[in-house]
Amino acid sequence: MSGKREFQAIEWCADGLRLLDQRRLPQAEDYLLLDEAGAVASAIRDLVVRGAPAIGITAAYAVVLSARAHLAAHPGDWRRRVQADITMLGAARPTAVNLAWALARMQQILEAHAEDPVAALLAAAQDIHAADITANRRMGELGAALIEPGAGVLTYCNTGTLATGGYGTALGVIRSAWAAGRLAAVYAGETRPWLQGARLTAWELVRDGIPVTLITDNAAAFLMQRGRVQWVITGADRVAANGDVINKIGTYQLAVAARHHAVKMMVVAPLSTLDPDMPDGGQVVIEERPVEEILHLAGQPVAARGAGAWNPVFDVTPAGLVDYLVTEAGVIEAPDREKLANFDLRQPPGYNSD
Amino acid sequence: MSGKREFQAIEWCADGLRLLDQRRLPQAEDYLLLDEAGAVASAIRDLVVRGAPAIGITAAYAVVLSARAHLAAHPGDWRRRVQADITMLGAARPTAVNLAWALARMQQILEAHAEDPVAALLAAAQDIHAADITANRRMGELGAALIEPGAGVLTYCNTGTLATGGYGTALGVIRSAWAAGRLAAVYAGETRPWLQGARLTAWELVRDGIPVTLITDNAAAFLMQRGRVQWVITGADRVAANGDVINKIGTYQLAVAARHHAVKMMVVAPLSTLDPDMPDGGQVVIEERPVEEILHLAGQPVAARGAGAWNPVFDVTPAGLVDYLVTEAGVIEAPDREKLANFDLRQPPGYNSD
Repeated sequence: MSGKREFQAIEWCADGLRLLDQRRLPQAEDYLLLDEAGAVASAIRDLVVRGAPAIGITAAYAVVLSARAHLAAHPGDWRRRVQADITMLGAARPTAVNLAWALARMQQILEAHAEDPVAALLAAAQDIHAADITANRRMGELGAALIEPGAGVLTYCNTGTLATGGYGTALGVIRSAWAAGRLAAVYAGETRPWLQGARLTAWELVRDGIPVTLITDNAAAFLMQRGRVQWVITGADRVAANGDVINKIGTYQLAVAARHHAVKMMVVAPLSTLDPDMPDGGQVVIEERPVEEILHLAGQPVAARGAGAWNPVFDVTPAGLVDYLVTEAGVIEAPDREKLANFDLRQPPGYNSD
Repeated sequence: MSGKREFQAIEWCADGLRLLDQRRLPQAEDYLLLDEAGAVASAIRDLVVRGAPAIGITAAYAVVLSARAHLAAHPGDWRRRVQADITMLGAARPTAVNLAWALARMQQILEAHAEDPVAALLAAAQDIHAADITANRRMGELGAALIEPGAGVLTYCNTGTLATGGYGTALGVIRSAWAAGRLAAVYAGETRPWLQGARLTAWELVRDGIPVTLITDNAAAFLMQRGRVQWVITGADRVAANGDVINKIGTYQLAVAARHHAVKMMVVAPLSTLDPDMPDGGQVVIEERPVEEILHLAGQPVAARGAGAWNPVFDVTPAGLVDYLVTEAGVIEAPDREKLANFDLRQPPGYNSD
C-alpha cells in the first residue's frame, strides 16, 4: 500500500474499458481490459465492478463498445445488435436503478443519431462519469455539513471511488467530513458475505490515510449502545418515490438499530439513484445470489454439508427510518413521498451532464 | 456426514479428558486428549471448547485432572497447586459465569476433603455434566411449549450439544419443538467472526436431520420484515440479577430487531448461567478477542493492510428486550429484577446435582 496513490476503478482507454477487478482486492490490484459489451455484462454480473453508480457508468461505456464493434462488423445491422446489447446489459443485475437510468440515457443518444453514434455515445458516457464525480463532491459537502464535530460514524458496504465514478457517496461524505476535521472515528461494517467493507472500504480509507475500524456486522447495535457512533451513513441502490431505500443487505438492520439508539441515519444517493417510477420499496426485485457465497469462504466450504442458505443481497429500509437523504441537488430531511415529489430531480447547474 | 451418529464433545476417559476440537469443525472431527489442567485452560482459551455450559463442565473435569496429577507428583504440596490451577482455569475466559460457577462447586468439594479428593471431585464433575443434560432436556420441553405450531425460528451462535453437556439450550428448544412438529423453518445466523452458526449449529442440525437455512448476520432484520420468523431463540453466557442477558456479540442487535418487528425473543439458560451477584449487565467484562479474527479469514488476510478492528465477542441485551427466559426451574416471562429475585434458583428435584 503506497499512501494516497490514485487509482481509476473505471477508465476509458483507446483499446476499450479498463476495470479494476474488485473481486481480487485488497490482495491484488488487477485490471481487466474489456472491448465488447458481453464481457462487460459478465463483469457486472460477476462483481468485477459493483456499486450502483459504478454499474451505471460501466454499462454506459459498454454501449460505446457495442456500437463501435457492431458498426464495424455489421454495418447493415448494427443498430439491432446494439439494441440487443443494451437489453442484455440491463439484465445483468436487477436491483440498482442506475443501470437502467444510464442505459436509458445512452438509448436516447443512440436514437438521436441516424449515422455513426460512437462519438456521441462516448461523450455521453464520459459525461455521466464526470457528472457522477461532481455530484459526489457536492454530496460530500452537503452531508459533511450535517455532522457535528467530534462525531463517530459507521458506514457500510463500499460506497467510495470503487462504487462510483470517483470520490464516493456515503464514503464521499466521510472523506469530506474527515477533511473538515469533524470526525472522531470511522467504523466500517465488514458486510457479509462479500466483505465489501473489509476488502474495499478499508482499502480506500487506508489509502486516504483515514483511520478505519472494522466491525463484524452483528456488532453495530453494541457499538451504538456504547455511544461510539452518532451517525450511520450509507449509499443506496434505489430510492423509491416514497423515500424507501433499497441498499445492501444489512442496511435495514442498521437503520432499525440506529433508530433504537437515536443514532442518525444518512443515505447518500445521487439523483440517478432516485426512482420516481417505483411507488415504494415493496415493488423492487431483491437480487438473491448463489448460496455458495455464504456456505463457502475463500473457496473452502465453511458450513456443514447439507445446510441451506438464504442470500438476498439487498434489503428495503422504509423511508420512516431515514433521517436525511443527501443528493447533489440538496438534502431532504425525513424524506417522504410528498417531499420527494416536490423535489427538483434535475441536476443543479454547473454539472457536466444536462 | 453420517446421519444421526452420536458424538461426545466432552468425555471423561480413564486417560483424561477428551474434547472434540471445535476449531476444526465441520471439516474435520478431531479429538484432543488432555491430561493436565494447563492444557485444558489453553483449550478453553483457544476455543477448542466453547459455549458457557460446556466451558463450566470442562473446567470441572480439569480440576479432577489437576488433583490427580498434583496428588501423585507433589503429595506434600498438592492442595496449593490445585488451588493455583483453579485460579488459572477461572481466568481462561472472562464473560461466561458458568466457569466460575462450576469452579466454585469444585472448590467446595476440594475443601470438604482433607485426604484424596479425586473420587469426590470426579463424581462432582460428572454430576455437573449429567445435570446440565437433564436441565437442557427440561428447558427444551418448556421452551418448545411456548412456540405456536407453524412458527419460523431464528437461532444464533451455537447452543447445542457442542456448547453444553449435551442436547443444548436454545438448540435444545429447537430440537424439542422440531420433534413436536411445531416448526415450519429453522434459520441460523452464521455468527461472525468465528462462524459458530455456519460451522457448528448447521453441523448439529444436519446430523439431526433438521433442515437449516443459514443467513448472514446482517440479514436477520430483513428476514423478520418478510415475516419468515416469529421467534429469536438464543442462549446466554450470563444473566444478571435484573435479567440483562450477556451473550454472543450480535444477540443484542437481534433483540432490537425482534422487538421492532414484534418477533418474540426467547433466552434459554440453565440456572448455572444466572448470576444473582451481578446487579446488571453494565458490570460484566466483555471479552475482546484478537482483531485477526476479523481481519483474516481461513488464515488469509481479508481486510486491507492498515485497517483496525474492534472485536468484542459478547454484548449486553437489556432485560426489557427479552420476552421469555427459560430455565430448567421454569419460564420467566418479561424477566426483571423482582421476578428473578423471587425465582427459586435451586434446581428442581430429580436433577442429578443437589
